[in-house]
Amino acid sequence: MNSSVLATVLALVVAAGFPLAAYSQAKPDTLVKQRQSAMVLQGKYFGPLAGMAQGKVPYDQAVVVRNAGYLDVLNRMPWDGFTPVTKDEKTRALPAVFTDTAKFTEAQNQFQAEVTKLVAVSKSGDEASVKAQIGAVGKSCAACHDNFRQKQ
Amino acid sequence: MNSSVLATVLALVVAAGFPLAAYSQAKPDTLVKQRQSAMVLQGKYFGPLAGMAQGKVPYDQAVVVRNAGYLDVLNRMPWDGFTPVTKDEKTRALPAVFTDTAKFTEAQNQFQAEVTKLVAVSKSGDEASVKAQIGAVGKSCAACHDNFRQKQ
Repeated sequence: MNSSVLATVLALVVAAGFPLAAYSQAKPDTLVKQRQSAMVLQGKYFGPLAGMAQGKVPYDQAVVVRNAGYLDVLNRMPWDGFTPVTKDEKTRALPAVFTDTAKFTEAQNQFQAEVTKLVAVSKSGDEASVKAQIGAVGKSCAACHDNFRQKQ
Repeated sequence: MNSSVLATVLALVVAAGFPLAAYSQAKPDTLVKQRQSAMVLQGKYFGPLAGMAQGKVPYDQAVVVRNAGYLDVLNRMPWDGFTPVTKDEKTRALPAVFTDTAKFTEAQNQFQAEVTKLVAVSKSGDEASVKAQIGAVGKSCAACHDNFRQKQ
């Protein structure tokens, strides 16, 4: 497109609510909001799977496959928001997030590995294996929360 | 795994912060939080692309491909949160979201179609085409916001 069309489109981009702050250095409160958003969505898509594993929600393989796929993408999104500039923000992140980064990274990797396994297992259609792997994912959530998130 | 192991794992699942509410009927404020989280993350991953299209951020094809892929998943996440039970929540969603659902769905589909195109174009490596398509995605964001989101 020519430059005047581009200018119009880009004005619309800005109007769409993506101001400079969104692509310059993100502010601490923005980083927190973004990482918490990733956690909220992980909860949205993991919650029903936990319910299925517990027998509180009818087992639905299509939902498992879809949600596992979503989690496989969402699980990449929170971590770059846990930078040292956010350590004075009021959140439930424990100081260990910033002081024991090796262990925090290991916990992230463990979670990602369990989600990757869930994606694979969810396609097999073996309900018992899927439920067991949902449990393993939940366990990796809990392991990280236990060490790096303040209890409520 | 046997049932006692399962019970332990599932206790951990619950401890991980996915209480019943997460997989039973979500409450209006939860639905709002979830859909806003999807919007926040779309902003996180679209923002840098808008910056590239505007020449304010150096063009980086790897980031475009990655973020386009993320947007291709994130763009499926907000819409089921816009249910009528949320219409009295304090948000920027305009009444048209709940009264002109056909047009709202059309706007979602338009956005999804533009993101799908961006995913394809981003792999071509043609910078000008990618930037034009980033503009088209931004335009579809703005078109929906103009009609369905209260101005600040």
